[in-house]
Amino acid sequence: MHFTGANILSVKQFDAEAIQQVFSIADQMQPYAHRKKRTKVLDGAILGNLFFEPSTRTRVSFGTAFNLLGGEVRETTGMESSAIAKGESLYDTARVLSSYSDIIAMRHPKAGSVAEFADGSRVPVINGGDGANEHPTQALLDLYTIQKELLHNQLTVDGMHICMVGDLKYGRTVHSLSKLLSMYKNVRFTLISPRELSMPDDILSILDSAGHRVTVTEKIEGSLDADIVYQTRIQQERFANLQDADQYRGKFRLNHEIYTRHYKPNTVIMHPLPRDSRAEANELDNDLNQNPNLAIFRQADNGVLIRMALFALTLGVENLLQKYETDVVWHSAKANL
Amino acid sequence: MHFTGANILSVKQFDAEAIQQVFSIADQMQPYAHRKKRTKVLDGAILGNLFFEPSTRTRVSFGTAFNLLGGEVRETTGMESSAIAKGESLYDTARVLSSYSDIIAMRHPKAGSVAEFADGSRVPVINGGDGANEHPTQALLDLYTIQKELLHNQLTVDGMHICMVGDLKYGRTVHSLSKLLSMYKNVRFTLISPRELSMPDDILSILDSAGHRVTVTEKIEGSLDADIVYQTRIQQERFANLQDADQYRGKFRLNHEIYTRHYKPNTVIMHPLPRDSRAEANELDNDLNQNPNLAIFRQADNGVLIRMALFALTLGVENLLQKYETDVVWHSAKANL
Amino acid sequence: MHFTGANILSVKQFDAEAIQQVFSIADQMQPYAHRKKRTKVLDGAILGNLFFEPSTRTRVSFGTAFNLLGGEVRETTGMESSAIAKGESLYDTARVLSSYSDIIAMRHPKAGSVAEFADGSRVPVINGGDGANEHPTQALLDLYTIQKELLHNQLTVDGMHICMVGDLKYGRTVHSLSKLLSMYKNVRFTLISPRELSMPDDILSILDSAGHRVTVTEKIEGSLDADIVYQTRIQQERFANLQDADQYRGKFRLNHEIYTRHYKPNTVIMHPLPRDSRAEANELDNDLNQNPNLAIFRQADNGVLIRMALFALTLGVENLLQKYETDVVWHSAKANL
Repeated sequence: MHFTGANILSVKQFDAEAIQQVFSIADQMQPYAHRKKRTKVLDGAILGNLFFEPSTRTRVSFGTAFNLLGGEVRETTGMESSAIAKGESLYDTARVLSSYSDIIAMRHPKAGSVAEFADGSRVPVINGGDGANEHPTQALLDLYTIQKELLHNQLTVDGMHICMVGDLKYGRTVHSLSKLLSMYKNVRFTLISPRELSMPDDILSILDSAGHRVTVTEKIEGSLDADIVYQTRIQQERFANLQDADQYRGKFRLNHEIYTRHYKPNTVIMHPLPRDSRAEANELDNDLNQNPNLAIFRQADNGVLIRMALFALTLGVENLLQKYETDVVWHSAKANL
Repeated sequence: MHFTGANILSVKQFDAEAIQQVFSIADQMQPYAHRKKRTKVLDGAILGNLFFEPSTRTRVSFGTAFNLLGGEVRETTGMESSAIAKGESLYDTARVLSSYSDIIAMRHPKAGSVAEFADGSRVPVINGGDGANEHPTQALLDLYTIQKELLHNQLTVDGMHICMVGDLKYGRTVHSLSKLLSMYKNVRFTLISPRELSMPDDILSILDSAGHRVTVTEKIEGSLDADIVYQTRIQQERFANLQDADQYRGKFRLNHEIYTRHYKPNTVIMHPLPRDSRAEANELDNDLNQNPNLAIFRQADNGVLIRMALFALTLGVENLLQKYETDVVWHSAKANL
Repeated sequence: MHFTGANILSVKQFDAEAIQQVFSIADQMQPYAHRKKRTKVLDGAILGNLFFEPSTRTRVSFGTAFNLLGGEVRETTGMESSAIAKGESLYDTARVLSSYSDIIAMRHPKAGSVAEFADGSRVPVINGGDGANEHPTQALLDLYTIQKELLHNQLTVDGMHICMVGDLKYGRTVHSLSKLLSMYKNVRFTLISPRELSMPDDILSILDSAGHRVTVTEKIEGSLDADIVYQTRIQQERFANLQDADQYRGKFRLNHEIYTRHYKPNTVIMHPLPRDSRAEANELDNDLNQNPNLAIFRQADNGVLIRMALFALTLGVENLLQKYETDVVWHSAKANL
């Protein structure tokens, strides 16, 4: 995959080589993300951080990643109501707003809108989430986290066992991650969900035809040798009534007691966040907060690295990072990471 | 006109010499806007980008222009509701907010509010639109676009023929542009609008007394030798009923067929944007999107140049741009402009 | 007090030595705030400016202070509605959002929330106001202003006479300021308010036990030798009816005539802002705008200095400011301050 000048719209664009290229650059971003060094390789470049749907953490993560490479950020939050009310096309919006920046990160509630915007844009566009469709940087940061966490446990993605738990039908995150994982070898998937919320057939087909071992189940049994457990939220609004939802949640929650009983001592715990910390939902209990295998906040850290890597690749500076390095003279808690 | 430290509140401040000064500096901004070079002449300066009325594109255009000169941007979108609800005067708001920046770009829904704010401000204020009153940077970028497009066709503003089409009564844009054009020589104006939406008398007087040739008409005939056609929106809410509005729109729209029949092959097409791309409105059809004379997106590009020029002049650095130049090392699609 | 890496959550953290340390660094910030010099000591550092409750001036003041030290600002305004609606804990929000910055300035409507956030944060947090609880940077800038204004009049905080006027019951500002002033010697407090809005007993106890001379009164008499008059707003919504409120306002307003009659020619006039400039409220009349003792806008200027000092101390660069100095080449009205 040729990154310079490219749009990043879908996980489908990435083959195994492209993924490893992104991850290799993400690794090189660590000294900058940890504030051990500073790089100004994007000095003078402007990110258009266009969040037509609010998402504080994704928006700030993109902005921070760009700042850490030395660039500036101009941004917008929420619908550009006046222009849309006046009937402006997404093409026009894209033509105009792309006048103001060198690269665009964009979120929009409508599936397909980011690709449509990219058609009108005169600069590369990175999809920050377009409705139920795609959120490729989330999928990449999930995979990057899995690879790093497994490496820490002296394991690899090839041959690993991942449990995905909860709402596997509507969760954009697990769909995209599954597509990426299908490119690896001999992955064992245990897909634990109520039947009504099971993984869609098209994803199952992709996994099957790639030769992976897939178990679809409604019960948590069989997870004892999982290397990764990826929890998702049970969305009670999908159910006929609260009792049904509560019954599912009872089965699909994860807390210290369940973890100890059903998983290995080093099974890595992931979640796309935000998690519902309320007792009645509790898909991932706070009593796991001190568990060293809880990787959910490392996912957020990794998101910055992945976004830095994509910016560097798209703007063609992945080999110039060190050349524009300077020292960091202030104290940062990040240096302890 | 002495620019350093001045407020930019109205097109009335500009004489022919001042306009040419702005345009000359805008021309010098091209290498920076096209990312061929970077200048850091405003390193450490802070723009207060105060949009008390939302306007994504104007706000981002001002912010981008400031970043491209090396400055930082602090901004606000929407009404400062709490302070206003507590009865704070615009004078107090101005005194306080001007503590935080070196220059302010401000939009506000109330006519006259930007000038009132400027009275309390301790730093220069650039009007980014104050209700129905003024939007001087839009008028300047329109004129700058006209001059550049005509030059490309080996023509000048002196002696040109411009058609203004649509709602000429309420359109702030065509009023300000007409005032600026009145300073040139021997311009021919064809003002095409329904009688109810015709150009106000005070603007007509200015054009008449400056000796320009003005034709007021409800029909598109007579436009065949126009050098510029400036389309505006027909605002259906101004009409008694939809049928009336539709009838007007039928006459005042512009599409490929009408363009070919009523204009020269090189008549430049302009519009203040956003345009209404819906079929029922269609003041400027998408079937003209590939027409090389369509200048509407070049208007947006020129807006950045004009705003950069005004910032440089107001902060007194128009002769220091090159001294603080650095190289651009990242890939930018802007370099192809 | 050890500042590097510390949270700034409450005025209670500050002893006399810590206060003088902050003020000494604030003094050193003047050439940068006045744009006589530029420092880039925080080059590459990122402020997370998280305003979960809107407050334009405090938000922009923090952002400007960080920019003036060379840092970048990522920010959010308003509630992160989606995450909270999905039941995310403040701990999770803090863990994630602190991934993106080196220091956080945070405002939140709920008392105690900033401290709770700080528990989850991996970087230092500065309280920008948490409901009725604390707003320590406001208290510090008020005290800094008092000290500077008194110095100009050849007076000191020790031994001064301050009148606090208006709503002393609900005003967070006067409570925090009183706590800070209690650390000085022999201050005379005249606390002028309607009985229903008098200073709470716990604050009076602090002042009493520190040996200060406190007069609680409903009448403005006895203010003739005050060195400072600190006006606050009378909030009519606290009263049974408008007439009662008006009666109080009649007594507790300040204008040129009252000032001349009840205060010394050099009594310094302060107010936390915004002030209600409407005639029916008028706690501080516009006819005092040209009075050289009116310090309310100098308070805003000082707020930038105090916030710069806190950032420098917290990030451990207070001794490196000059080392990373550069020249300012653009024209700034700030240079005349």
